[in-house]
Formats: sequence, structure tokens, C-alpha cells
Amino acid sequence: MFNTVAIVGTGLIGGSFSLCLKDRELVQHVIGVTRSAASAAKALELGIVDEVLPLQEAVKKADLIYVAIPVDTTVPTMLQIMSLVTDKQVVVDAGSTKNVLCKALDNHPMRGRFVATHPMWGTEYSGPEAAVRNAFTGRACVICEKEKSDADALTQVETIYRQLGMHMVYMHAANHDVHAAYVSHISHITSFALANTVLEKEREEDAIFELAGGGFESTVRLAKSNPAMWVPIFMQNKENILDVLNEHISQLRKFKASLEKENADYLLELIENANKIRRILK
Amino acid sequence: MFNTVAIVGTGLIGGSFSLCLKDRELVQHVIGVTRSAASAAKALELGIVDEVLPLQEAVKKADLIYVAIPVDTTVPTMLQIMSLVTDKQVVVDAGSTKNVLCKALDNHPMRGRFVATHPMWGTEYSGPEAAVRNAFTGRACVICEKEKSDADALTQVETIYRQLGMHMVYMHAANHDVHAAYVSHISHITSFALANTVLEKEREEDAIFELAGGGFESTVRLAKSNPAMWVPIFMQNKENILDVLNEHISQLRKFKASLEKENADYLLELIENANKIRRILK
Repeated sequence: MFNTVAIVGTGLIGGSFSLCLKDRELVQHVIGVTRSAASAAKALELGIVDEVLPLQEAVKKADLIYVAIPVDTTVPTMLQIMSLVTDKQVVVDAGSTKNVLCKALDNHPMRGRFVATHPMWGTEYSGPEAAVRNAFTGRACVICEKEKSDADALTQVETIYRQLGMHMVYMHAANHDVHAAYVSHISHITSFALANTVLEKEREEDAIFELAGGGFESTVRLAKSNPAMWVPIFMQNKENILDVLNEHISQLRKFKASLEKENADYLLELIENANKIRRILK
Repeated sequence: MFNTVAIVGTGLIGGSFSLCLKDRELVQHVIGVTRSAASAAKALELGIVDEVLPLQEAVKKADLIYVAIPVDTTVPTMLQIMSLVTDKQVVVDAGSTKNVLCKALDNHPMRGRFVATHPMWGTEYSGPEAAVRNAFTGRACVICEKEKSDADALTQVETIYRQLGMHMVYMHAANHDVHAAYVSHISHITSFALANTVLEKEREEDAIFELAGGGFESTVRLAKSNPAMWVPIFMQNKENILDVLNEHISQLRKFKASLEKENADYLLELIENANKIRRILK
């Protein structure tokens, strides 16, 4: 139970985190920090935050500072926060890349107060309007380099995520970024590219609109995702994503070759191999 | 209201169609036709069909013959059916490709009794166990070359699909196959290829299992789909699928180039364009 939580970035993740804490009465007062006045007003209107303050004031008043902003703005914002915190406070980041941030804070005198996390939950929507109650439940939360966090800070953060129904997975930040490229970032790239494919080639949009069933919607829905969030993620995790993307293009070329050569046996083999994903998906 | 319907292929589509008719009391008696004894037993056990008969006997007894089998077996099966039907009966196909079949039946003396349809509904599962009640509702049903069907046959088929909550879309079979490549077939290929990418590169399967969130599941779930259904679809719609697949690979290469060159502006442009899919997806 926290007296005061500061949510830096009151969008999809920060907003949902706040609503989840409030619903479970795990916090008394939530302060929002946001760059845009419109987003501040919306967060207040939706009851995501109780007041909106500049970063410096918010940090001073908060027991827990929860940072959920585009990853290109995380390091400078976090350095500002870390220069203000005392050893009574806890700082958490929820970004989709972890290595750049963890490296930037590695030798910071207050490193112990920081807990690097990535709750594996999200939707294709963004902003305070996208915040949902009962987010996070049943999903994994990655905690990176936990040995660098003070024991009390770590326990507080684990406890709160568990209260939201998450289970913890621990790994080094560099490993996190590799895995995130596979289980999240590449899915977004294929979905964006699929949307561009259809928009480029299929001029009869009415036909798509009429015909698109569950399969299309499922593979392409991530293409609605916010570029302000995803461009920085892709840029920061470039090396890992390029590895996966090259492999993905070569896998698609196998399908292409099997069709060009009308090789049904090869096509069967490719699909049967893909079916092995059944043992990974629930 | 039909007295007797023969379902040729009692899997996902045929089985769901039967359950939907039964639930709405639109049929008195359903005969199943299936190649495997196990599938026949399952369809009986699940109440999908009331009896199982060989094709010839089933066709003779039925008012409506509904064919939902892998598309490589459709033409020979359909020719057999068409040689048996009278002008009191109606034959419907529900396959995912339409051009090869429509061409094969184009000059058939009983062509008028045939209605070529593609209900735009499905899941990644197959077999009688995959059949679900309340399938089809709210989705489009494509009817191809309706002018070649007898008016009474067409009206009966439209009426029954409407009673299941579908709306009709009319097009030439060749156009259907182009659109199906965009809104369905390419989604399956990207999903199969994405599964193969992850299985190839990500050796730490526990990590995927732990971390995979909604985004990954959404883009990769179609990779569970049955090769016995999909290999023939891909082979039959090869030309259209290759067109789309080539475009898709070139779209992925744009993402690759933008990352290699660290060109954030280009990446932004690609994603903003992909976001236009919002106006097509509900």
C-alpha cells in the first residue's frame, strides 16, 4: 500500500497501472506527470490521476515513481528523476526495451532505488483513453538485473505486480531485449508490413472491409499501434530486430519458393513445422 | 426449412454449419459424409450429424448438399455429386478458393443447381471437434457467379446464410480469389512463417512461453492451422498469393532498410502509413 504514486506518462501502460492500483485500493493518491495538457486533462477526467504536477514536484511527493513513456525519452527523464530521489523512494520503469536504460543507470549512486521492469501486456491503442482496468492479469512481468536493486525496493515492486495478478520472470537486460524482439517487436513489424502490403496492392478497400474475417484482423490489428511508441523501440532494439527480421524474410522466401516450384511436399513440411508453435501457445 | 441436409466434410465449416442449422431448427435430419471412420464417429457423438452414409446414398436423400472439404478434393467430389442431383436439389460449396471449381462446373448440365459460396468465417482448428455453435454470425458470405445458379437455388442459399446472420457479397470467382489472397491467405502465410522464424531462432522456448503476450499470440495463432486444408488452398491460389507475398517481402525490406540506415523518419512514415488500416478494421 502506497500513500502517493507518481505516474510519469499517463498513457496505455501508466494509465492502466494507475487504474489497477486504485481499483484494488493499493494507493491513496496518484499524481500524473505528462507533457501534453490534453493528456493531463483526459487523465484527470477519467480518474486515472488525482492531480497533475510538473515532474520535479511529483517526484518529491511520491513513494513510488512509475515511468511509462516512449523509450527515446526514458533515459533523460530517468536521470532527472534519479537525481531527486531519496532512499525512501522507489523508481520503476515499464518500457519495452531495457538494455540502454539499465546501462545508463548502471553506475548511478541511486541505482538501488530503481527496478527495471517490463510487464508483458499491451494493446494496439494509446493515450489515457486506452487505459483499462484489469490489465496485466495472468501475464508475465520481466524484472531485469534485480541484484542491482535494493532488496526493499525490489520486494515492493514484486509485491505490487503480484497483486495485479502477474508472475515474475528474471533476466539480464540484454537477454530481455533479445526475447522481446522475438515475442513482441517482430510481431509488430510483420503486422505493420502486412497492413502496408494490403493498402498498397488492394485498391478495392471496400472488398477488404467486407471480407476481412477474424484471421486478417488478428494478424493485422497491431498495425494500428502508435508510431511515437514503436519507432523508438525499433531504433533502440535495432540489432536484435534485424536478426529476427532477416530470418523472417528467409522463412517467407521458403514459402515463395515452394509455391513457385509448385512443391506441395515442401509446403506441407513448412506448415507442419509451423504447427509446432501449438506447444508454445496455450 | 430443409427436410434433409447432407454435409460432405463434417469438419470446422461443415460441422459448424450443421450445428447452426440444427440450433435454429432449420433442418430435420442431417446426413454426414466423411472419409474417415474416426471423424464419422466424432460427428455422430457430437450431434453434428444424425447418420453417416456413403456419398451416393447421402446425395440421393438430401434436399441440400453442403460441401466443405479440402479444395484439392472438391472438383472430383463435386462432379460426382452433380452427376446425381435432380432439379429439386441444391448443391453448395464452402471452399476458400472458387475459381478452379467454378471453371470446372461452368458448362455442367446441372450448373444451375450449384451455388458457389465462401462464408468468411473460420478458426485455426479443424475436425468435428472444432465445430462451433453461432459460427458465421456478423460475417460476409461471398457468392460467386450467382447468375449461373437457378433463381430458386440461389434464393434458398441466400436465405439460409442470412438466417445464420451473414450478409451476402457477390463477385466473380476470379475476383474472389484475388481478394481472398489479401484478406485471408497472406495472413496465414505470414503467421506460418513467423512461427517458423521464432522456432528457428529462439531456442529458449521457455522464454517464449513465459513472455508471449497478446500481440505475439494474435499474429501467430493462425500458424496452428491444418496443413491438409491450407496446402491445397495455397497451391490453387498460387498466382495471386505470389503477387501478394512478393509485395509483402518488399514491404518488410523497407523496415529492414530503415533500421539498417537508422532512418527514424522513414520508419515513422512506414508506420504512419500502416496505421491507415484503422479505417478498414472496425
